[in-house]
Amino acid sequence: MAFRIGTGIDYHQLAEGRKLFIGGVEIPHHKGALGHSDADVLLHAICDAMLGALALGDIGTHFPDTSAAFKDIDSKILLQQSYDKIKAKGYKVVNVDSTLCLEAPKIKPYIAQMQQTIAAILELEVDAVSVKATTTEKMGFVGREEGLVAHATVLLEK
Amino acid sequence: MAFRIGTGIDYHQLAEGRKLFIGGVEIPHHKGALGHSDADVLLHAICDAMLGALALGDIGTHFPDTSAAFKDIDSKILLQQSYDKIKAKGYKVVNVDSTLCLEAPKIKPYIAQMQQTIAAILELEVDAVSVKATTTEKMGFVGREEGLVAHATVLLEK
Amino acid sequence: MAFRIGTGIDYHQLAEGRKLFIGGVEIPHHKGALGHSDADVLLHAICDAMLGALALGDIGTHFPDTSAAFKDIDSKILLQQSYDKIKAKGYKVVNVDSTLCLEAPKIKPYIAQMQQTIAAILELEVDAVSVKATTTEKMGFVGREEGLVAHATVLLEK
Repeated sequence: MAFRIGTGIDYHQLAEGRKLFIGGVEIPHHKGALGHSDADVLLHAICDAMLGALALGDIGTHFPDTSAAFKDIDSKILLQQSYDKIKAKGYKVVNVDSTLCLEAPKIKPYIAQMQQTIAAILELEVDAVSVKATTTEKMGFVGREEGLVAHATVLLEK
Repeated sequence: MAFRIGTGIDYHQLAEGRKLFIGGVEIPHHKGALGHSDADVLLHAICDAMLGALALGDIGTHFPDTSAAFKDIDSKILLQQSYDKIKAKGYKVVNVDSTLCLEAPKIKPYIAQMQQTIAAILELEVDAVSVKATTTEKMGFVGREEGLVAHATVLLEK
Repeated sequence: MAFRIGTGIDYHQLAEGRKLFIGGVEIPHHKGALGHSDADVLLHAICDAMLGALALGDIGTHFPDTSAAFKDIDSKILLQQSYDKIKAKGYKVVNVDSTLCLEAPKIKPYIAQMQQTIAAILELEVDAVSVKATTTEKMGFVGREEGLVAHATVLLEK
């Protein structure tokens, strides 16, 4: 057995008039995440964790935000393409854990749907995909609702 | 062998007139962490890492801060209950690593006691429980001593 | 097989008139990282991740910033000495993943050299050493270019 671990961190600003996508799910909120793609902070962090585990670069290398091809793209496509890259190296995902840091809105009602969405793409059981959430207790830019952050970690097995 | 990895991140504000509990140890300081429970940022991050590794939700799911049952509770009880949940799934902890981000006080004198406390609950040798600490070099809300953050990671084995 | 995981986080302020070393590579920039040693945020995070995986303390324990011995020291030496400590315990590194959080400069042109530098010290193939980078989208102290942060994670095998 050959294992690898990887981690990803992603940041996005929140702005009025944008849709909010997290974990492949659209969440009703008066603000959304700014970005070149659909700005799905959680899926981006998971992409980076998978790519990082095999030293395949990062999401900016593979899906540059200067490319028109990725303008407003659904990040589920980026997750699928990142997963394809690790499969091509002979690896599968053992499990994914993640933490969203955001002050609002409450994302608990959407977590089961996020898990199902991610699990389907990564060919995993739902109980191998964890999405947790925390506020930063009103502190810092997350606490001021200027932005949100996602941390993801993955274990891969050859 | 079946492995899982998990990570947890926890944030608490610091306030005058609260006791400061970190890693199950009371640390003399003019400020303590605000929270519904005893606000032990390190034990909460380890709970979340264990729960996250098996996609069992997070500390807010199992121990809601709206419940009187958890008011001022000793977080060692939450750590024990989180550990019981992963044992019930047939898993044990291989090792725990963690990093505390706080500007003050110096916690080095208390680390050995934290390790012993955590190791006893998780049925581990002390050398499988790591607690590290860093300041944020005076930057951000941690640097201004408004709050503290803990990051924990665990490896589980079935 | 016995595995361990470890994580490290390091913070440094950026200041005019300092050289900027990241991942063992000097990067041309009008600011550099402040610190007692050469302030290489990435190498420090990797040291902490290796030490943390085996509960050997942290970089501040082994290389105190109050010691003249470590004044302006090349952090590649600290990485070598940290690695020697885990080898002495019978462990090798399986892989390293890392994320730099900094607003500027672009470090992509230097990543291959960082990977080679780190891989050589840790006796790894280059594809077992990952260095990723992200801005914080202008938010917080990283976004204001006051400082930079590195997160590293390692998988060790006995």
